[in-house]
Amino acid sequence: MTNDVLYVQKGPASLTEMTGVEVEEVLKSTKTILIPVGATEHHGAHLPLGTDTMEAREICRRATLALAERGCPVVLGPVVPFGTSSFHMAFPGTVSLTSSTLTRLLHEICMSLYKGGFRDFIFVHGHDGNLPSMMVAAQEIVDATPDARSVVLNWLTPLSKVYGTIQKSRKGEGHGGEGETSRLLVTHPEIVHPERQIAHHLSPEVMRKIQGPDHIKTGGGIFYATRSYRDHTPYGHIGDPGMAEPETGEKGYKVIVDWIADAVQRDFFS
Amino acid sequence: MTNDVLYVQKGPASLTEMTGVEVEEVLKSTKTILIPVGATEHHGAHLPLGTDTMEAREICRRATLALAERGCPVVLGPVVPFGTSSFHMAFPGTVSLTSSTLTRLLHEICMSLYKGGFRDFIFVHGHDGNLPSMMVAAQEIVDATPDARSVVLNWLTPLSKVYGTIQKSRKGEGHGGEGETSRLLVTHPEIVHPERQIAHHLSPEVMRKIQGPDHIKTGGGIFYATRSYRDHTPYGHIGDPGMAEPETGEKGYKVIVDWIADAVQRDFFS
Amino acid sequence: MTNDVLYVQKGPASLTEMTGVEVEEVLKSTKTILIPVGATEHHGAHLPLGTDTMEAREICRRATLALAERGCPVVLGPVVPFGTSSFHMAFPGTVSLTSSTLTRLLHEICMSLYKGGFRDFIFVHGHDGNLPSMMVAAQEIVDATPDARSVVLNWLTPLSKVYGTIQKSRKGEGHGGEGETSRLLVTHPEIVHPERQIAHHLSPEVMRKIQGPDHIKTGGGIFYATRSYRDHTPYGHIGDPGMAEPETGEKGYKVIVDWIADAVQRDFFS
Amino acid sequence: MTNDVLYVQKGPASLTEMTGVEVEEVLKSTKTILIPVGATEHHGAHLPLGTDTMEAREICRRATLALAERGCPVVLGPVVPFGTSSFHMAFPGTVSLTSSTLTRLLHEICMSLYKGGFRDFIFVHGHDGNLPSMMVAAQEIVDATPDARSVVLNWLTPLSKVYGTIQKSRKGEGHGGEGETSRLLVTHPEIVHPERQIAHHLSPEVMRKIQGPDHIKTGGGIFYATRSYRDHTPYGHIGDPGMAEPETGEKGYKVIVDWIADAVQRDFFS
Amino acid sequence: MTNDVLYVQKGPASLTEMTGVEVEEVLKSTKTILIPVGATEHHGAHLPLGTDTMEAREICRRATLALAERGCPVVLGPVVPFGTSSFHMAFPGTVSLTSSTLTRLLHEICMSLYKGGFRDFIFVHGHDGNLPSMMVAAQEIVDATPDARSVVLNWLTPLSKVYGTIQKSRKGEGHGGEGETSRLLVTHPEIVHPERQIAHHLSPEVMRKIQGPDHIKTGGGIFYATRSYRDHTPYGHIGDPGMAEPETGEKGYKVIVDWIADAVQRDFFS
Amino acid sequence: MTNDVLYVQKGPASLTEMTGVEVEEVLKSTKTILIPVGATEHHGAHLPLGTDTMEAREICRRATLALAERGCPVVLGPVVPFGTSSFHMAFPGTVSLTSSTLTRLLHEICMSLYKGGFRDFIFVHGHDGNLPSMMVAAQEIVDATPDARSVVLNWLTPLSKVYGTIQKSRKGEGHGGEGETSRLLVTHPEIVHPERQIAHHLSPEVMRKIQGPDHIKTGGGIFYATRSYRDHTPYGHIGDPGMAEPETGEKGYKVIVDWIADAVQRDFFS
Repeated sequence: MTNDVLYVQKGPASLTEMTGVEVEEVLKSTKTILIPVGATEHHGAHLPLGTDTMEAREICRRATLALAERGCPVVLGPVVPFGTSSFHMAFPGTVSLTSSTLTRLLHEICMSLYKGGFRDFIFVHGHDGNLPSMMVAAQEIVDATPDARSVVLNWLTPLSKVYGTIQKSRKGEGHGGEGETSRLLVTHPEIVHPERQIAHHLSPEVMRKIQGPDHIKTGGGIFYATRSYRDHTPYGHIGDPGMAEPETGEKGYKVIVDWIADAVQRDFFS
Repeated sequence: MTNDVLYVQKGPASLTEMTGVEVEEVLKSTKTILIPVGATEHHGAHLPLGTDTMEAREICRRATLALAERGCPVVLGPVVPFGTSSFHMAFPGTVSLTSSTLTRLLHEICMSLYKGGFRDFIFVHGHDGNLPSMMVAAQEIVDATPDARSVVLNWLTPLSKVYGTIQKSRKGEGHGGEGETSRLLVTHPEIVHPERQIAHHLSPEVMRKIQGPDHIKTGGGIFYATRSYRDHTPYGHIGDPGMAEPETGEKGYKVIVDWIADAVQRDFFS
Repeated sequence: MTNDVLYVQKGPASLTEMTGVEVEEVLKSTKTILIPVGATEHHGAHLPLGTDTMEAREICRRATLALAERGCPVVLGPVVPFGTSSFHMAFPGTVSLTSSTLTRLLHEICMSLYKGGFRDFIFVHGHDGNLPSMMVAAQEIVDATPDARSVVLNWLTPLSKVYGTIQKSRKGEGHGGEGETSRLLVTHPEIVHPERQIAHHLSPEVMRKIQGPDHIKTGGGIFYATRSYRDHTPYGHIGDPGMAEPETGEKGYKVIVDWIADAVQRDFFS
Repeated sequence: MTNDVLYVQKGPASLTEMTGVEVEEVLKSTKTILIPVGATEHHGAHLPLGTDTMEAREICRRATLALAERGCPVVLGPVVPFGTSSFHMAFPGTVSLTSSTLTRLLHEICMSLYKGGFRDFIFVHGHDGNLPSMMVAAQEIVDATPDARSVVLNWLTPLSKVYGTIQKSRKGEGHGGEGETSRLLVTHPEIVHPERQIAHHLSPEVMRKIQGPDHIKTGGGIFYATRSYRDHTPYGHIGDPGMAEPETGEKGYKVIVDWIADAVQRDFFS
Repeated sequence: MTNDVLYVQKGPASLTEMTGVEVEEVLKSTKTILIPVGATEHHGAHLPLGTDTMEAREICRRATLALAERGCPVVLGPVVPFGTSSFHMAFPGTVSLTSSTLTRLLHEICMSLYKGGFRDFIFVHGHDGNLPSMMVAAQEIVDATPDARSVVLNWLTPLSKVYGTIQKSRKGEGHGGEGETSRLLVTHPEIVHPERQIAHHLSPEVMRKIQGPDHIKTGGGIFYATRSYRDHTPYGHIGDPGMAEPETGEKGYKVIVDWIADAVQRDFFS
Repeated sequence: MTNDVLYVQKGPASLTEMTGVEVEEVLKSTKTILIPVGATEHHGAHLPLGTDTMEAREICRRATLALAERGCPVVLGPVVPFGTSSFHMAFPGTVSLTSSTLTRLLHEICMSLYKGGFRDFIFVHGHDGNLPSMMVAAQEIVDATPDARSVVLNWLTPLSKVYGTIQKSRKGEGHGGEGETSRLLVTHPEIVHPERQIAHHLSPEVMRKIQGPDHIKTGGGIFYATRSYRDHTPYGHIGDPGMAEPETGEKGYKVIVDWIADAVQRDFFS
């Protein structure tokens, strides 16, 4: 146990790192805030429990920079580090909120920010299990105010369409697999553990229900409630993290961030 | 005010019309139940407030028959006639539940049915505004039990892909438009009012946020929280109900029901 | 499994079958709405699970017609098909809400209708187990608004006084017995099953606690919380449904509806 | 402001005044407990805000003694001093709980007592506005346990039948009127203020909705939700407290206590 | 079982014993109210279950008199007789609320009093297990209103500093010990049972976690969540109640009441 | 807006940065976890909104190292970045949860960790406004499990005793003052802004109610509910941050961490 560097957090500052005075200043040029909603859940032997939180923050960090370059200023909101992760609870270390608690948490965060002056709330997940609660929260913020706007951006939909061009693996990569591991390597190489990486793939039949094209989270019309991942993977991850490389992570982030920046620019700045 | 016939309800019986003994009997051959989740909300001057409830029931009724023909017996569950319809509240007669109440309602219905012996809960909406709450409920039923399975089937995704081949209108048809009116004409002609039908279309920009291809409800990755429909349509509906015909309704039902039957057969009976 | 006719629903239209425009029109002449509160619970081998919902609707439908004839226009509200039926949960198919969920459901329905323009909320049950929750909801609607009025009408009180003159049975008829079966025969003969009818009567001691004259639901001062009906009746019903006839049902409806119409006319239209 | 005697509390001890060891001892001979549910609400210029709490306790105290004489031992439970008194909130000093809080309070009290060993929970009100919440609580205690029994005893029903033979007034006496004032004079003469007593009667039409024979609380079938008493009485009470005498209070207690003792003996000890 | 005198309640009247008119009158000279928050929990074989409720009331009663003498009028509020007593639940007769219910109860009591005209809410406990919930309630009352003030006064902090000069015992006296028993002897001698008193002391290590100087409740920085008292004391009390004397109780009350009167005078009347 | 380094996070890893496998491994040697509970609230023009979160984490990080050196292994738990900050809501950027949501959040986090194998939950705050909710959560975790232990460590109590020997300021330093600013300079110098620092001190009378020696948070017996800080400080902080130096921060951390390590070693490892 040492106090070596764990990771280096790059800017721009999220609301958490801004002073209140800086927030007041930035509110003069934008009322739009990105809310990264992460999780604390098992991701295999090679990735930290906070993987989804780190990803959600990094996506929003890059989107904030990209939007600033397009002349569309937004604020990088505070990271929400817990989600509804019931189906990972068989793996120690996982923290799972009830949907009701997550929804209330998001609601109270956004209503606080609304009172401070924000009006547009853009939720970005790091864990697709949070999507239903996020949608409920987004609608309730609109219902509770006369003028708030809110969207939930599910980047899995565009990303899943181009997995084949980004990842090396030709098998089904999912939770903690090549793609996610690659993205973590970009920002948190000190706490990604390649030496513990094990390839584990699911049968097509099971994979289909986890994140096939029919699944609502990747553009289909079916929401499959998920029972324990332990039933499908003894390691807690799906795919071959051994194929991960930072370059792949960069490519993934680019697809995600371009899609988010396009959506936000179109829907909130035109 | 008369006591003339309002509508004729055809079989098969839903759980509501079955006796408890019949339920015990059918549980010997299936543990799967379809739960139609409707709404009571304004649909323009020509459609009843219960349109979504009637549609959800009819979709599930036809799916039950179709699945029986394929050797996949399911029970037609009790119709839930209220949903989260906050964005129609500007129009009198609309009833809107909070998401929390709808989720609890669905949860308690399914947990009761679970105690009775059902194991597979298939939610089918009549109002896409209910989707987030339905997804939360589906996941919570799985979390609360050792062996329940649950899915939410959003037929808007497949239907939206073939709108062009089914409807006559070449403009954007939506809530209360040609498609929905046509489906109501099939089952409830006595309470559909063609003489009051008015065409009203939205600008493409607005329509995109209501149900464009980017919307999660039609296969995209964005959930747009919705403010009042009154901002967009003084009549409460979107589209040209005057083009509605029962034949168009039958075609729509066929697309929807085939998709549902395929999904249920594949995911629960193979 | 066929698509034969299950039942025919006669008018007048409830709010569910009315358009929003029709609701706006009727609000010009009345602000009073009847809310039928049913249940989905076992009623023996011969009656559908939705018996209480069907009865509550039929009572309100007839009361709406009767009041119109007296020059007292009211709206037939949306039927609430679920209630607190914990003591029937031993019989599969029963759906039971917690009192808290039922109260919230009724509250949100009425508050929605209040926002639309209604002011007087008259609750009519189909299942006396709902009475406490309905009373809570009625009071809370009044508390939450500056001008709403609300009553709960328990027709069991007047009906129980004249059972002897209406029913043929000289024994204790209750849940699913001669009276209730007779009323269902009036509206839903296709789904009442006389061939499965079995007479089952309770001892006077037990019957007294279920619905004797001391019981608050039949005009007494005692509320008996109820444990499982299964402890008392293996069939789930009480009484002799074999004596049921539509004529008896018509007589029962007349007593109930006259009493309701008298109360509503006196309390809301004079 | 002095420290003179306010009132003298006579035995038997309620659970509050018993030691835990005494409770364990008495549990060997009975599992039945009376729960007096009072209120803190305005009762006119002459009666204390805790009138309903004092009455509920006194009724249960006398019933405990009466039942002991009949060989039916029961425990006098802890007094609940707050209720749902929204319709007295226009008068300062009134404390009103939501129905949800009162129900939870009663539930947690009874579940605690259940864990200690009690099985039969008999609720007795001092304020009829609590009746719906008490009924909900009674049913939920039965639902939450395998063997608890619970009733709510509404002594207004029998008392209202003999008002004429007990009270001197020939007009409508109600909240804070001759009867209630007489009962308070029996136990708390130091804090009843005859010099401030004012006669105030309601019109028959209004009185009918407050507690006429049609009202469910006095044996009828109608529950009238109540708006502010201030609309009907500027003094907060109904009736002529100036006619109150301790002897009348004694007579009232006798009717109430005999009825309760009869009911408890019959339903729990035979 | 007799109806002998249990106890004599001395004045001044609490809000419960005041009429609404008296409350309106006193509100002209003060907006400050003391809220005694007690409990119903086991206190050994010699003390009543309501000990904490009786103490809290007596402390506030004396503080009200003391403050009146100083020209600082306050109202003695209604006694709250139930608290969060989970760690005494192993002893029958204990009633324990969840923190959520206690907080709601306190909130609704104070909001009612606020509507009546009170502005300053001073919570005084009889059971330190209630402190966290009381603090939550105090803050929430301030948050919910534009002008309420609220404090929680924990008299254990000053009292613990002078235990040595007041009590005879040289060992650790705690729950139900010499001090508490002495205080009860002052007001409720009829229901304190010296003949059942047993000395029981805890090891210093255990005592330290129950109420040592590090404990937040006696001026330290640590809050120790408490598991069952049954683990430490088979009798339910801690200390030697046999050493109790009314004089010791009077001394204890004096320390407590002086401290409260000083704090209230300084913080609310200067 | 740049992507320069914001801050560098040093080890040891918190649970968030650990893999699930590492958690399983560490659970073999300890079941004890520190839970840092922060806030997102205004701290003047010179400190980030996440100051309390950063402090809470740093305190626990150092305590984890210190305890490891003493042979008392503990896990650094996930940081909770939001608290109950209602009294800072007048300053934009502040996020405030209700106490109920914070308590549920802490409860669900700890219950998840409990299911994973942890047993001892040590809460450490970064914002004393969270203390009541943390105490409620600590007690509820103990109540909800057969064997969890939980404490809340309020380091303000020991720190306040030695302020004089650590800080240079001779005036009242509080929220965002010399001490807190000094601690932030240790870990997050890039986002502390000395150029914006303004001295602002409160009158002794006000300061006493914010954090004087009578306050429960600094070892006294009084909990003062707090209204808006804006009433007292236009800048949002209290004290003179211009006197801050990293050395002072190191001294403060040493006092805090020594006290925590002593308490944890004594209460959980001996």
